[in-house]
Amino acid sequence: MAQKPSIPKGTRDFSPEEMIRRNYIFDTIKTVFRLYGYQPIETPAMENLSTLLGKYGEEGDKLLFKVVNSGDFLSKVSRDKMADIESLPFSTMISDKGLKYDLTVPFARYVVQHRNEINFPFKRYQIQPVWRADRPQRGRYREFYQCDVDVIGSDSLLNEVELIQIIDEVFKRLKIKTEVKLNNRKILAGIAEVIGEAERIIDITVAIDKLDKIGLEKVNEELINNGVSQSAVDKLQPIILLGGKLKEKFESLSEILKDSKIGMKGIEESMAVMTQLKELDLETKWDLDLTLARGLNYYTGAIIEVKASSVAIGSICGGGRYDDLTGIFGMPDVSGVGISFGADRIYDVMNELNIFPDNKEFSTKLMFVNFGEAEAKHCLKLVAEIRKNGISTELFPDPAKTKKQMNYANKKGIPFVALIGETEMQEGIINLKNMQSGEQKSVSLEELISKLS
Amino acid sequence: MAQKPSIPKGTRDFSPEEMIRRNYIFDTIKTVFRLYGYQPIETPAMENLSTLLGKYGEEGDKLLFKVVNSGDFLSKVSRDKMADIESLPFSTMISDKGLKYDLTVPFARYVVQHRNEINFPFKRYQIQPVWRADRPQRGRYREFYQCDVDVIGSDSLLNEVELIQIIDEVFKRLKIKTEVKLNNRKILAGIAEVIGEAERIIDITVAIDKLDKIGLEKVNEELINNGVSQSAVDKLQPIILLGGKLKEKFESLSEILKDSKIGMKGIEESMAVMTQLKELDLETKWDLDLTLARGLNYYTGAIIEVKASSVAIGSICGGGRYDDLTGIFGMPDVSGVGISFGADRIYDVMNELNIFPDNKEFSTKLMFVNFGEAEAKHCLKLVAEIRKNGISTELFPDPAKTKKQMNYANKKGIPFVALIGETEMQEGIINLKNMQSGEQKSVSLEELISKLS
Repeated sequence: MAQKPSIPKGTRDFSPEEMIRRNYIFDTIKTVFRLYGYQPIETPAMENLSTLLGKYGEEGDKLLFKVVNSGDFLSKVSRDKMADIESLPFSTMISDKGLKYDLTVPFARYVVQHRNEINFPFKRYQIQPVWRADRPQRGRYREFYQCDVDVIGSDSLLNEVELIQIIDEVFKRLKIKTEVKLNNRKILAGIAEVIGEAERIIDITVAIDKLDKIGLEKVNEELINNGVSQSAVDKLQPIILLGGKLKEKFESLSEILKDSKIGMKGIEESMAVMTQLKELDLETKWDLDLTLARGLNYYTGAIIEVKASSVAIGSICGGGRYDDLTGIFGMPDVSGVGISFGADRIYDVMNELNIFPDNKEFSTKLMFVNFGEAEAKHCLKLVAEIRKNGISTELFPDPAKTKKQMNYANKKGIPFVALIGETEMQEGIINLKNMQSGEQKSVSLEELISKLS
Repeated sequence: MAQKPSIPKGTRDFSPEEMIRRNYIFDTIKTVFRLYGYQPIETPAMENLSTLLGKYGEEGDKLLFKVVNSGDFLSKVSRDKMADIESLPFSTMISDKGLKYDLTVPFARYVVQHRNEINFPFKRYQIQPVWRADRPQRGRYREFYQCDVDVIGSDSLLNEVELIQIIDEVFKRLKIKTEVKLNNRKILAGIAEVIGEAERIIDITVAIDKLDKIGLEKVNEELINNGVSQSAVDKLQPIILLGGKLKEKFESLSEILKDSKIGMKGIEESMAVMTQLKELDLETKWDLDLTLARGLNYYTGAIIEVKASSVAIGSICGGGRYDDLTGIFGMPDVSGVGISFGADRIYDVMNELNIFPDNKEFSTKLMFVNFGEAEAKHCLKLVAEIRKNGISTELFPDPAKTKKQMNYANKKGIPFVALIGETEMQEGIINLKNMQSGEQKSVSLEELISKLS
């Protein structure tokens, strides 16, 4: 009967220690979201496959976790067809639901479905797990949390400014030094246009996006392989390597893109956002980065990406503006902009920098040792009284050896232990031990409460 | 391209208003759990089917949501077999993972898998969704949250007492009047023994469990149909109808069960718990209820169930002691006791009683109207300053008509609106409107902050 227990690959259990640290991240993020007037929503773990399929490219469709239809699901499948059907088309015959792959598509579905109840512009946040049947590797899981914050139904660039303020505030509170890279999909479109490859905008952005990882030479190689002309690649070089101060970058770029309407629009948008940012007292560094592309095709305006300054782990937050995410569900022309915080990577960064606050403030503050039935009965009332003052308190449930009970308190990081034997019971006092200093002294209930409050 | 968006049946979206109310319930429960020294864990949404199958009876196996294996899953299936295989056995050929059905079995798996890291007795809580392919109906969903709290690795009856204290504290804070019913599986076993049907303990408890719903006559009918003898059913009547005060009940019961060792042990356990409870100053009513059985077969000691006093909605919390939950995963003789709060039903009760606190304290406190580019730029800095004081503030992103902006504020329940036109900009003041009273007055930034803090 006994099985060696395990969990599906790429998934994780979270221990109390990990939960406390993860909750610290989530709570910080939520507090900032609320400070800016964003409200929470949640959507189901499962969505109809019709909602999910075709939204993440061919590769994405393969990475969806599909859920077998309940009941006698094979009764709807023609047995003849089963003889030589392939797995992917077969899966859609026996499954009409899948686990959500991200929070963006379910959010778009939510907005369209609830359009008549929503107060636009809709400022919402959503912190939930998503699932991808990706090959698990370090830092990549099959179940992981996304923390998304979006404004939908407003095309004001103030929203972009606000999201960067939120980034600044979140990482200031978490004590992570960051750099924010900004770009605009319209600038990239303008670049593709002026180098004579307007149709290849996607290939070009996908290749440019890899600059950090694979270097300029390989990027150029990929561009050529994707059919971008040598002359276009040559023209591209000075643009993506454009350096200097922000003002100089914009000046050069305006010269380069002067014949591209969309490109000039991108410059205008970026400058408007950055002019506002300069006025604000942000801690994070931010800059225009023309090599920032982000693979997702639905972006149409600003692109935002955040890296931790001192830990090489890739992006810990990112997003951008999308002008037609809800169109696919029958609600066109709704512009939105949003970012997503990568909780798992933020966790890793904070672990590496060792900047998590002390766990103790989240744990039990006081434990009563259990010396036996009569003593436990006596303690039970004291414990109830102490808890009334909001002090997290335990009474060890079993009259085990004192050493065992002290070990338990130690391992749990409980800072104070109360010992009440026969003498203390008679005298109505509490022998209070400070677990760190080892100091022990007799106190009254009132003294104990005021000390630990 | 446009699809009419929907979600799988039995699942739900949660709007900001619903989220705030749900979070109020979860936060209250968590705060109490922590006050008693319980620590959070989380387990994955998906478990291996080998972990889940066979743990919830034949019916439960059918209600598991199974996830199709990734990749070319049919390559491992013999095509010959597919011609006439049935859905259930086939599903286990193409699926080795399922969505978790409750939190108890994954918790047992967690304890066994992490036994060497856990500090026993392990006081854990877990608040996560679970999934059941049940027929959806009012109050029954295919995705719903469970809030479990358990102590594992201690057989002290103080744990039972503590869980009832937690029930009392949670519902006191939520302002729900409750009644706690207590029983003990050993008493039920004793009863089965003395009426001469020791082997039929499960049939008997399942039938007794329905007393509330179907009445005594139908219960008796079911007992007879299940092969319980008429004389046993006759003997059972005075026992399940046993009334009177607690002391009298125990006296009668001790007489009835005097020849059953296990029955007398159950009485002893129940009396010990209730003696402690009497000493504590609980608000909830509690009583011994011999008809309380709870269907789950893994209970071996105390059984606990909570009902709301003034709303007929069934149990809103329940649980009990299980002596061998981890045995199935290769770790025998670990006793645990736990309860589960039904967040969805608690939500419905609070809605019906209209006892949710005012949402406003969770929402934006102040909105700045956007009168145009220059004004917005001016406001942006004020807003940043106000947020530094922890006041949740928005600047409306678009320079829309004032009426539209005021409507937005109204719908979102924002209590204060700041209006800054040219005059206010020049004078460095803020025109602050109280949205409830309609009162409007000019204040300085400092005055505004101190008023809203």
